[in-house]
Amino acid sequence: MSGALGVLPPMLIEDAVDLALKEDLGRAGDITSAAIIPADARADAVIAARRPGVIAGLALAEAALRRMDAAVAFELALGDASRVEPGAIVARISGNARAILAAERVALNFLGHLSGIATLTRRYVDAVAHTRARIACTRKTTPGLRALEKFAVRCGGGMNHRFGLDDAMLVKDNHIAVSGGVTEAVRRAKAFAGHLVRIEVEVDTLDQLEEALAAGAEAILLDNMPPDMLRQAVAIAGGRAVLEASGGVTLDSVAAIAESGVDFISSGAITHSAPALDLGLDMSVCP
Amino acid sequence: MSGALGVLPPMLIEDAVDLALKEDLGRAGDITSAAIIPADARADAVIAARRPGVIAGLALAEAALRRMDAAVAFELALGDASRVEPGAIVARISGNARAILAAERVALNFLGHLSGIATLTRRYVDAVAHTRARIACTRKTTPGLRALEKFAVRCGGGMNHRFGLDDAMLVKDNHIAVSGGVTEAVRRAKAFAGHLVRIEVEVDTLDQLEEALAAGAEAILLDNMPPDMLRQAVAIAGGRAVLEASGGVTLDSVAAIAESGVDFISSGAITHSAPALDLGLDMSVCP
Amino acid sequence: MSGALGVLPPMLIEDAVDLALKEDLGRAGDITSAAIIPADARADAVIAARRPGVIAGLALAEAALRRMDAAVAFELALGDASRVEPGAIVARISGNARAILAAERVALNFLGHLSGIATLTRRYVDAVAHTRARIACTRKTTPGLRALEKFAVRCGGGMNHRFGLDDAMLVKDNHIAVSGGVTEAVRRAKAFAGHLVRIEVEVDTLDQLEEALAAGAEAILLDNMPPDMLRQAVAIAGGRAVLEASGGVTLDSVAAIAESGVDFISSGAITHSAPALDLGLDMSVCP
Amino acid sequence: MSGALGVLPPMLIEDAVDLALKEDLGRAGDITSAAIIPADARADAVIAARRPGVIAGLALAEAALRRMDAAVAFELALGDASRVEPGAIVARISGNARAILAAERVALNFLGHLSGIATLTRRYVDAVAHTRARIACTRKTTPGLRALEKFAVRCGGGMNHRFGLDDAMLVKDNHIAVSGGVTEAVRRAKAFAGHLVRIEVEVDTLDQLEEALAAGAEAILLDNMPPDMLRQAVAIAGGRAVLEASGGVTLDSVAAIAESGVDFISSGAITHSAPALDLGLDMSVCP
Amino acid sequence: MSGALGVLPPMLIEDAVDLALKEDLGRAGDITSAAIIPADARADAVIAARRPGVIAGLALAEAALRRMDAAVAFELALGDASRVEPGAIVARISGNARAILAAERVALNFLGHLSGIATLTRRYVDAVAHTRARIACTRKTTPGLRALEKFAVRCGGGMNHRFGLDDAMLVKDNHIAVSGGVTEAVRRAKAFAGHLVRIEVEVDTLDQLEEALAAGAEAILLDNMPPDMLRQAVAIAGGRAVLEASGGVTLDSVAAIAESGVDFISSGAITHSAPALDLGLDMSVCP
Amino acid sequence: MSGALGVLPPMLIEDAVDLALKEDLGRAGDITSAAIIPADARADAVIAARRPGVIAGLALAEAALRRMDAAVAFELALGDASRVEPGAIVARISGNARAILAAERVALNFLGHLSGIATLTRRYVDAVAHTRARIACTRKTTPGLRALEKFAVRCGGGMNHRFGLDDAMLVKDNHIAVSGGVTEAVRRAKAFAGHLVRIEVEVDTLDQLEEALAAGAEAILLDNMPPDMLRQAVAIAGGRAVLEASGGVTLDSVAAIAESGVDFISSGAITHSAPALDLGLDMSVCP
Repeated sequence: MSGALGVLPPMLIEDAVDLALKEDLGRAGDITSAAIIPADARADAVIAARRPGVIAGLALAEAALRRMDAAVAFELALGDASRVEPGAIVARISGNARAILAAERVALNFLGHLSGIATLTRRYVDAVAHTRARIACTRKTTPGLRALEKFAVRCGGGMNHRFGLDDAMLVKDNHIAVSGGVTEAVRRAKAFAGHLVRIEVEVDTLDQLEEALAAGAEAILLDNMPPDMLRQAVAIAGGRAVLEASGGVTLDSVAAIAESGVDFISSGAITHSAPALDLGLDMSVCP
Repeated sequence: MSGALGVLPPMLIEDAVDLALKEDLGRAGDITSAAIIPADARADAVIAARRPGVIAGLALAEAALRRMDAAVAFELALGDASRVEPGAIVARISGNARAILAAERVALNFLGHLSGIATLTRRYVDAVAHTRARIACTRKTTPGLRALEKFAVRCGGGMNHRFGLDDAMLVKDNHIAVSGGVTEAVRRAKAFAGHLVRIEVEVDTLDQLEEALAAGAEAILLDNMPPDMLRQAVAIAGGRAVLEASGGVTLDSVAAIAESGVDFISSGAITHSAPALDLGLDMSVCP
Repeated sequence: MSGALGVLPPMLIEDAVDLALKEDLGRAGDITSAAIIPADARADAVIAARRPGVIAGLALAEAALRRMDAAVAFELALGDASRVEPGAIVARISGNARAILAAERVALNFLGHLSGIATLTRRYVDAVAHTRARIACTRKTTPGLRALEKFAVRCGGGMNHRFGLDDAMLVKDNHIAVSGGVTEAVRRAKAFAGHLVRIEVEVDTLDQLEEALAAGAEAILLDNMPPDMLRQAVAIAGGRAVLEASGGVTLDSVAAIAESGVDFISSGAITHSAPALDLGLDMSVCP
Repeated sequence: MSGALGVLPPMLIEDAVDLALKEDLGRAGDITSAAIIPADARADAVIAARRPGVIAGLALAEAALRRMDAAVAFELALGDASRVEPGAIVARISGNARAILAAERVALNFLGHLSGIATLTRRYVDAVAHTRARIACTRKTTPGLRALEKFAVRCGGGMNHRFGLDDAMLVKDNHIAVSGGVTEAVRRAKAFAGHLVRIEVEVDTLDQLEEALAAGAEAILLDNMPPDMLRQAVAIAGGRAVLEASGGVTLDSVAAIAESGVDFISSGAITHSAPALDLGLDMSVCP
Repeated sequence: MSGALGVLPPMLIEDAVDLALKEDLGRAGDITSAAIIPADARADAVIAARRPGVIAGLALAEAALRRMDAAVAFELALGDASRVEPGAIVARISGNARAILAAERVALNFLGHLSGIATLTRRYVDAVAHTRARIACTRKTTPGLRALEKFAVRCGGGMNHRFGLDDAMLVKDNHIAVSGGVTEAVRRAKAFAGHLVRIEVEVDTLDQLEEALAAGAEAILLDNMPPDMLRQAVAIAGGRAVLEASGGVTLDSVAAIAESGVDFISSGAITHSAPALDLGLDMSVCP
Repeated sequence: MSGALGVLPPMLIEDAVDLALKEDLGRAGDITSAAIIPADARADAVIAARRPGVIAGLALAEAALRRMDAAVAFELALGDASRVEPGAIVARISGNARAILAAERVALNFLGHLSGIATLTRRYVDAVAHTRARIACTRKTTPGLRALEKFAVRCGGGMNHRFGLDDAMLVKDNHIAVSGGVTEAVRRAKAFAGHLVRIEVEVDTLDQLEEALAAGAEAILLDNMPPDMLRQAVAIAGGRAVLEASGGVTLDSVAAIAESGVDFISSGAITHSAPALDLGLDMSVCP
């Protein structure tokens, strides 16, 4: 359901596309096409997948093309979050030839990068589909692209963790050390937080887990615990808090982690180490 | 030699860091630390490698920390382009505890992303070290980060291709089709280009190669040719043009491609599909 | 404790100050002072309260002065959240005379506006001090100044509600109407929200309250209910959810609302209708 | 007459609306509506006054809605500067439901803030309608919103003072002190000013007034003078300069001040301390 | 006296310098120097005049250098508005060699452009020094550089006209035609303008001049009138308004125009057609 | 052929136009027209040349008008690079009267400035039309307008030199001095440059020329050599490198320089010292 993907504020899309086009067009624009392609030549094109994957970022591809040719025809063949096989057509484009050539690389760079994230996320999500665990991203995102990458994670079936340092509290080792313990750290957090801010506590040991539960933590991040220990943690928590496993999560290990019964498994790799999905723009300039 | 890395204009660094900090700090900043860490607490920290790799992006990490604490002490233990083993200390930091916590993730996100590119580039470079071929990047970069990623490629021992559509000409299949042939396309390009713009022609066949050489192309991109065909191309060119192989380049295939005798091998994967290098910030808040 | 105020990201301060200085300096700067005050004249000044109130926004005043004279001496006599009486000195300033004159109005406009919010908030907070209720702000803030105004609310002893549409969910009448009821609306919200997003439901009636509680809402906004009805709501909830009263809150009515036993009372007036606190900058240009 | 209101440069409107939407939408946009409202749901809405007042800022409300739904129907029921009673419909809106919900708060925040200023200005203007005095605003405006607030003042029937430090000269106490007297200060001002810059002198005493008149000041600000003294000042000036009364102006005192015969009365309160006008957006999502 | 030059708001300088450096440094910075000059090489340099002229824009040159090397030593040998002969040293610079090379062209482009304007302005000013007429600039400035060019005009001894469409009124032919005559146009202007906005009326004929004077215009622009007609205009006005001659002003004609007795002569050429002053940066890189 | 002019990236046009309009409209917009011209008045206008010249910058003029009235009719009577005689109509405009008046000066400032550059360039180009030499611009451009001015040079029939420090290498005296000689400087440059970066070497003597040729320089800038020496240089080079003459180029000297046989002659004057072309906007407001 498309609603489940959420939305990207239009300014985010426009600002990201403008930044990307500016760095590609530079001061003189596409000089090769200016030299060779007539100003009024038109072209038809399709964006097609070269590898299997999950699509994310169509709005950015369209925005890049539209920025260069406001009258471009951009027809989606499928939507964000769609699975594709090699050869699948993603969108059909018709417009000014120079404009399409000028926007092509930016459109594909966005689409390839975000679809890569959606594709890898989907692999993790599929790997834990037999469990109750949800896959979540982290703040380990590419600088400047966080909101777009969080959207791509949703396209891959994943959930979003907090978007920044300001929209939820995550009490970590340094906070606990400074406070003198989990209990005091949670107390300080609760005193500061308004009633619409969630507090999560990161713990390394089962003792810390018990202390966090006693302090009333609503969500607990179990850091780098092996599956057995996670299973114990689930038993200890007994539903009193949402449990998130983190650390050492790979495609190989994620199923075992999920089978421990945790609610969420967070992975930095799905955003910071996803290879781009290979997509191409096949174009014919009209004679 | 550090000079060989070139420089990043300071505005690029500052703009990228500000954008990244803004997306992480949001409207309210690091609310967890505001609630728990005293405003004047100080901390010492080190940035350390968790995996082997090549470092790139130290100036961005430093800029992120300095943006939050203008008086932070940031001492480099090694420089960009350095190879590291797990545990290697990259930088030592001392400053305001809240500031370091607020900048930590942004600093690591830049450093992990760019070092990942340098690390993967270096693997390609090492794989062709016994040949004359140089590894080059492409325009398949992460939107908004092109100049930073091109710098990371240099840190990994790679060379930069053009930075955008405006600083060199690359005559591709659509340009050739519209012009009616390689010869005419090159003629148009030369008529437009000033004397400081290089022109490269992309060819698919050895016939096109010969036409491009005859037309006076100075650089020729050999698209998706197998090693044998590349070897023929090298023989045909006979030093009349710089030859660049592109397409289907992987860590497995790159040595064979290089052994064909081409001058450059360009790879999109080194920028768009490099996994982040795992680095951490180990911190102790001073009592 | 200063920590309780939280922090303003430095970019927020700088961007707000630059925008304000640009609109005051225009294209030619302070032409009166340029014509009359020697370029190297120096001045001493104090910022002083003219009316009783609570101070908020000192960092903005300092930033405005420092932007015009990087070497200005700006010494705080008291901190944000301090209560002041008429005549109280807030800060002492020494620096270039033209620079201080150029920054004066911007510094005072920030300080007067934000202190006005802190002062009015404090009056509401004091009025409910005998109860468990906390005063909270809303999204009814001055466009462009939300984070600064939320900070001023904290300086006045208030709590912050969500900062925007993206950091918490507030299920309102339209959402309920579209969903066909509170239960379905909450179900949809929970399905979308990650584990670090809090969900609040706005209800108009006690029936809706019961439905929201049954649906597992963690926070419930009781819209425009009179004190008696609020008291019933508190009894019904029995601690199962955080309760927030909103609507029709004035300095006259707030105590009675608080005595109902609700946890939070939110008021748009403390941000959108707070009169500025009267502060002045008394200056003597050195001969 | 609409012409009398002047115009707001379109960039001012767009920049203000974008800034406000960005701070409300944050990184993830309206997550509640994304979770609950179908992407293609449509809605009808009206903006209506809840209290009596004067409207200002309709262009900003429309721009906020249009920014989120370029195809929104936004039909004005009345124009800026209109007086409204509770229940009066200000505008009718029809468009995408999510877009309207996303823009609602920003549109109302602008409209409420600016209409509040227009409303309070109108009360001052009405209070002096039996005199020749005009009500004028000052530079005591909300940071970042000066031009918008000056427009709101015009909607309330007020006049604008200078827009910044650069578009007119106001010779104040510090300028006079540095110069050694009013005469020399005015001389310096005239020597610097081009022929399209007006010079006003602020005086505290009738002696200074006479000196300013003798020096050829075209406009004189009478600072904090009681009505009797203002009357003397009017007599002394005898029409040789425009006279502006300032300081201690309240709704209670303004009529007496105006009856002294001054030409202008300036008030900071009409911009910095006007309570927001209560307006609401009543919406029904189409089934 | 330096005060007479007025000041440039620091944001104007910084924004202009950043824009200029960004367009020169592009994405990769000064690649020639990066390849050849060691990163820590230092250099000494002087900026020297190659032709006679008047200097303007030193703050921009310094800002460009400091932007690339925050620790650069930049010592002024003379100030803005100074007359120079060929060979005159303007400033002495010492700092990082790469930084100086990277900033050199931007520094000189600002200095040459603005000094060219100051130089040409000074020639006009000198040509009318025997009269009471002052030379003024217009709004015919280089896009994006208006405030800087107005400053350069002051450095050349000229006066500034209005800075934009918003800081003074200039009633021109179209305004008069729409209004049905000068009298009505001036009446409308006065009704709208606050007391700190000056109104000037442009007239083509002596009849219009009389009508404008009767309507109470304070400043009158005499458009394209020959010296004889200007002399008549001066006689008719008899000091009742400031008179500005405009149109057809050249270095050859300006003295005759000035001798008519007008107060101001405005020229677009001093800003839009001033040749750059030739300045150079002579540098030696330290071994 | 229009293709030969290349294109301006749309962001460059929009950013330049917005910056220029903002500096002209300021905070209050066109107050004269707001006071006098009815809000819905319409007007017809033509842009016409007052002097002979070559047109450049029509896209900027149109963008300025369209920014103020999105529905303006703007019909080109001729294109960029067209030669015009006095009286020639360049474009016909029809739209909102206030909008046209508000955009007029900005449109003309762009058009006059860029057409001035095209016009002067064309004079140089015509002066060498009997030779093989091409006229090229330099980096001596007006800060902030480089790409626009380079476009204007192309409109005048000139060629572009590098656009910044980053898109080609120019090895100059300081680089040679630091390296210890031309040979080593070229070696360093080649080692750093990718295969799409051209390297030019600036030489002062024929000995240096020979050294540069031997080092494999592809382009050589002959600095300040008289025609005889240039002729010797051409003979020495014998086609082994592109030769560019620079320094002391005037309209009087350029033909003799060109007759030496060099390939390019570069001139800073065509961008930094071109007088504006006189164009006017003739308008009639519809009754």
